[in-house]
Formats: sequence, structure tokens, C-alpha cells
Amino acid sequence: MKFQTQKWVKPQDLNPNGTLFGGLLLAWIDEEAALYAAIQLDNTRVVTKFISEINFMSSAKQGDIIEIGMQIVKLGTSSLTLKCEARNMMTKAKILTVDNIVMINLDEFGKPAPHGKTKLEFVGDRLI
Amino acid sequence: MKFQTQKWVKPQDLNPNGTLFGGLLLAWIDEEAALYAAIQLDNTRVVTKFISEINFMSSAKQGDIIEIGMQIVKLGTSSLTLKCEARNMMTKAKILTVDNIVMINLDEFGKPAPHGKTKLEFVGDRLI
Amino acid sequence: MKFQTQKWVKPQDLNPNGTLFGGLLLAWIDEEAALYAAIQLDNTRVVTKFISEINFMSSAKQGDIIEIGMQIVKLGTSSLTLKCEARNMMTKAKILTVDNIVMINLDEFGKPAPHGKTKLEFVGDRLI
Amino acid sequence: MKFQTQKWVKPQDLNPNGTLFGGLLLAWIDEEAALYAAIQLDNTRVVTKFISEINFMSSAKQGDIIEIGMQIVKLGTSSLTLKCEARNMMTKAKILTVDNIVMINLDEFGKPAPHGKTKLEFVGDRLI
Amino acid sequence: MKFQTQKWVKPQDLNPNGTLFGGLLLAWIDEEAALYAAIQLDNTRVVTKFISEINFMSSAKQGDIIEIGMQIVKLGTSSLTLKCEARNMMTKAKILTVDNIVMINLDEFGKPAPHGKTKLEFVGDRLI
Amino acid sequence: MKFQTQKWVKPQDLNPNGTLFGGLLLAWIDEEAALYAAIQLDNTRVVTKFISEINFMSSAKQGDIIEIGMQIVKLGTSSLTLKCEARNMMTKAKILTVDNIVMINLDEFGKPAPHGKTKLEFVGDRLI
Repeated sequence: MKFQTQKWVKPQDLNPNGTLFGGLLLAWIDEEAALYAAIQLDNTRVVTKFISEINFMSSAKQGDIIEIGMQIVKLGTSSLTLKCEARNMMTKAKILTVDNIVMINLDEFGKPAPHGKTKLEFVGDRLI
Repeated sequence: MKFQTQKWVKPQDLNPNGTLFGGLLLAWIDEEAALYAAIQLDNTRVVTKFISEINFMSSAKQGDIIEIGMQIVKLGTSSLTLKCEARNMMTKAKILTVDNIVMINLDEFGKPAPHGKTKLEFVGDRLI
Repeated sequence: MKFQTQKWVKPQDLNPNGTLFGGLLLAWIDEEAALYAAIQLDNTRVVTKFISEINFMSSAKQGDIIEIGMQIVKLGTSSLTLKCEARNMMTKAKILTVDNIVMINLDEFGKPAPHGKTKLEFVGDRLI
Repeated sequence: MKFQTQKWVKPQDLNPNGTLFGGLLLAWIDEEAALYAAIQLDNTRVVTKFISEINFMSSAKQGDIIEIGMQIVKLGTSSLTLKCEARNMMTKAKILTVDNIVMINLDEFGKPAPHGKTKLEFVGDRLI
Repeated sequence: MKFQTQKWVKPQDLNPNGTLFGGLLLAWIDEEAALYAAIQLDNTRVVTKFISEINFMSSAKQGDIIEIGMQIVKLGTSSLTLKCEARNMMTKAKILTVDNIVMINLDEFGKPAPHGKTKLEFVGDRLI
Repeated sequence: MKFQTQKWVKPQDLNPNGTLFGGLLLAWIDEEAALYAAIQLDNTRVVTKFISEINFMSSAKQGDIIEIGMQIVKLGTSSLTLKCEARNMMTKAKILTVDNIVMINLDEFGKPAPHGKTKLEFVGDRLI
């Protein structure tokens, strides 16, 4: 799994108890998954269809750097399934894991459409 | 299930494709679950521990009113499990459902602690 | 008055003195009034026309849960007048009260238009 | 009245109907009043105590420049009363007016305290 | 140079180290320059083309009032060059200075276009 | 130069003219530089000291994916100098370039301090 994106926990990212607001982390992950899928599929019309169980294993505090990793686990006809992990970059402590995030490829009318990709490319390769 | 909270979809709530940003909806739901748990447990020190599968069934567009419903499904010793649904208030179309959101009751040191509640109260009763 | 909506005071909701930013509370109330009116009038084209005197009676701090209550006080031909109170959910201390918030019903061209409602429904009834 | 502060209406400032979100304008005004009072009183510990009737006379759309004017109308022992107007900078159309915003001067413990100012200074003079 | 705009440093404006987030200050300055240019050129279609070296001389903390000053240094055919300084309003300590911010006047198609202004007006004069 | 971070342009990222708000892009870049420096220096106490000339070469619109690249150009005793470029991920069109962003390493008291690094590591290596 590549941990390509970092987030730095700022005061506005905290919940009332002073730790990272979990809902915000979910929003970061959803956006990251959409970006990752859009790049793989050469199409920015992608939507999240399904997210499997989310385990919150630890929290984070102000000043922590969170890194978010994504990995393709399955390539369907009009979908892409990702695995995701968020961890503390310094301590490597896992914050949460998600086994399956299913992203759907849409056509210009907003309907699911085949993406035409048949093998996994590494996003890393595309970024160079 | 009580649908007590409404959100009005504004321009800043949209993804680049012009529909409601799914990650933001997750953040709304996580905050709603935390509030619901805090009120039931008389303790604002609560954290999200687990979220079961999330199905995105439809989307929403600018101007739509989303309503979020919560229902207690289980009361553990130091936990509270909620069921959640978000739907379009006008059309009643389901946007997403989550069967289990497990919230943990924390003590003043941030450790899980028994909440001492043994029967479900209706949040509605407490609001009067 | 029904206190149906709760807000949890987070770090990003504070003013530089570390208490709830009053202007943000006004924004929350204005949005709540618009939502309340839109639901009553079955029309999301509503705008705030008038807000009577606002008394700030107490403040709130990080971690507090604020509840916002609305009540219909008058139903005009193309308007709806609401009464509002924000209070601390735990202590019930009043934070602010507003006697009249006048919302106007607009037609598709953005002009005031009769809403056709002649008796007050309880929002609570509609939410079930 | 001096119209010293401008705001440029951006997409994230709009309500679901595509005009300037009134609640946000209230937040801008409250912050402006607090800043104005803090500068006049040489003390950033100031809070809003009271806002008189608010009339929304017109709206604004994306791209409009709003200017906010403040004027001192009364100087109490521990308070400062401001008059406020927001208008469209280009057309000069009034958006809202408020006759009285009462700001309170606080001491280091957060209690109202005399501010020791006995005559009005012009903020403009202080800014040079 | 006129220091016309003030910003009050709030919790959500801080970086993880608890001082004013420098990137946010840059955003404030860019918006201020655009507003200043739009007012001078009677045209809200303006874009930032160039920003010269930025020196961060000191920082700011929560509760500080920052004032931002702008001054026209050159008037081109389709451009306007501004000089900018941000400083602490209370201590007058400089936070950053920028010698040249070049703003471009655009026509309705988004292309650079002559603005037709041949002499500097004082923004202050226009605000009265 | 590694283009490791992507941003997806959303409605709330636009200026009133409907293109990416330049000031926000500067904030993204400043945060990215701070993160990059923090990771290289094993220290999250880093601040931006200097940013050289910024050329805005093109803009971006809603739905575009922006990628931000960073490269170390100089390693001082208590500083780190970065080169930065932001470009459109799909078209590879350059949006802006910055030759030098000087980041300073701080000690626990907020004073500049040697970071003890004498050779450049590749951030990519550290991320695996």
C-alpha cells in the first residue's frame, strides 16, 4: 500500500474533546478515494458507492501528521475497489482501516459506465 | 427511527461533480451520532469506535434538505450502538444507511468507562 | 417551543477569547429558521426578511451542546414569523432569545408569493 | 458612517437559492463590530451583548462586493454602542441596517469593566 | 500606505504549532489585493498574475488583530501593481511585506483588457 | 520533482469569477511545504520564512485535479529550501512555480535551531 497523502492536524480539525474529529477523517478518506479512482480511470466523474466496516483503532492530536494509504483490490467493469488505511506518520500507529471502498465510474449523464481499464496501473507510475 | 436533524445542501457542500460530497455527509453523520450518544449518556466524552457497512443509495443536489435519523440498537456497558439513515426530506429517497455505529463512553482520562445506563431513554423525551 | 437541533461547540466555533463566536450562532439560527420555514411551507425558496432584537444572555464554551428551539408565532399570507431561543442543553441556561424572525415565501422568480398555508402544523408531526 | 470593510461574495458564501447566505452576513457584521470595538477600546476582550432589529432590504449575488459600515452612537461606562449598515458597493443598494449593536468591555476575568474612554475617537485616525 | 482591513486571529486560523497559519495570511492578502484592484478598476474580473518575494518577519497568535495595507505602485495598461504589508495592529510589528502584486484586468471573456484608468485614485476617496 | 499531492477543485475553492481562488492555492502550497519540511526534518516545528517570486501561469476550474510538486534545493544549518510547482494533473499545464520556499527548523521554544541533517533524503523513500 502506498501512503501518498499526508494531513497535518490543525486546531480546526479537532472535535470538542480535543482529538482529531473522526468525521473529518472520513471526509478526507472519501476525497482521497475519489481522487485515486479519478486518476486511475482517467475520469473525474466517479462516486463512492460502498464503504465496508470502519475500525477506529486510535486517535490523533493537534500537530500529528496523518498519512493515508490506498491500494486497488479489484477492478470491475464500471467499478474500482480500494483498500484504505490511515496511520500516524511518526509512530506508524494505525488510526483506521477500511477493506473495501467501491467507486463507480460515471458517464457524462451521471450513469454507471464501463471504464475500459483491464489491468491495474500503479498510481505511482502515472505521477512521474 | 427519529429523523430529528436536517441539513440544507449548500454550494460549499458539493463535490466537483455538483452533487452532495459523500465525505461531508459521513462527517455530518459522525457528528450526529456523537451528539446523540452524548445526550443519551449525559457525557460529552464519547468517541466513535466502529461504523458498519455504508451503502450510498442515491445522491442529493444543491437545495435539497437531508434528514438524518438515529436509533439506539444496543446498550453495552461502556458503549452505545446506533443505527442510522440519511434520506431526502422531500422525496423520502434513502441516501445512505448504516446498521451499526458503535460509540464509546470515556472517563475524564479518555479511557473507556461504564456509562451506568441500563435502559433506553427516548431522546425525544429528554428534549422537552 | 421544540428544541430540535443541537450543535456541539468545537474549536473552530470559538472567537479569539475562547468562547462561542456569537456571529456563528446567528448564522446557525438563521439557517435553522430557513430550514424550519422551508419544511412548514413545502418550499425551499424562503428568505429571512426581519429579525427582531437579539439578547445575548450568556455564552458557551468548547464542548458545550447548544440546542436551538423554534416556534411559529404568526402565519401571514406570504410570510411566516418564528420565535427562537438558543440554550445550553446541559444547564438549560439561555444563550439568546429572538421574539420574531420573519421568513418570506418566494415564487420561482424570487418574488414574494402566497404560501397557501392557513393553519399551523407541528413540524414534529411532519417529521415522523 | 465609514464603510471600511469589503467582502467579496464567493460560491461558498451562498445559500441553497444562490444568493448571499443571510446568516453569514450576520456573522461578518458581528465580527466587524467586535473588531471595531476592540480597536476603539484598546482591548480585544469584548463581547456582543445586544443587537437591535435587523432589516434585510435586498440580497447580493456571487461576485458582488459588500461593504460594511460602522459608526459609534453611544459610549457607556463599560459599553460601546454601534450603528451598522451593509450595502452593495457598486450599486449602493442597502442590504441591511442595524441601529444598535451593544458591545461590552470585559476585564481579564471575563467580567464587564469600565473601559475608561470618555470621548469618541475616529477609527480612521487610529489607522494611519 | 493605508491599513484599511483588519483580521482577528481565531482558533481556526492557527497552524498546528498554535501560531497564525502563514498560508491563510497569504490567502487573506490575495483576496485583499483582488478587492482593492476590483474597486480601483471598477471591474470585479481581476486576477493575480504575479507576487514578488514574500518575507515573513514575525508571526501572530490567537487574539491578535492583523491589519493589511495596500498601496498602488504602478498602473499599467491592463494591469495594476500593488505593494502590501501585514502588521500587528497593536504592536505595529511587521508580519510580512510584498513589494509587487500584479493584478490583471480581464474582459468578459476572461482575456486581459485595458482598464482605461490613467491616474491613481485613492481608494479612501471612493469609499466615502 | 515529485508531484505527490493532489487537490480536487470544488465549488468552495473558487473565486467570485468561478476559477480556482489563487489565495487558496497559496495556502495549499504553504501547507504542503511545511509538511514536506516536517517530514524531512523529523520535526513538526517548522515555519515558512521566505517565498520567492510567484508566477501564476494559468488557472484551474471546478473539477480539475491540481498536483503539487516539491523538491529540495538547499539544506542549510537550520533551514531547508524547497522548489515548488503546481500543475493541472490532466493537461500538465503549469499553474504556478516558485523557485525558493525557505522553511526554518524551530526548537521547543520556537527559536531557529540546527536540524542536524546533512544530506538530502528522498521523501519517497521515507514513505514506504
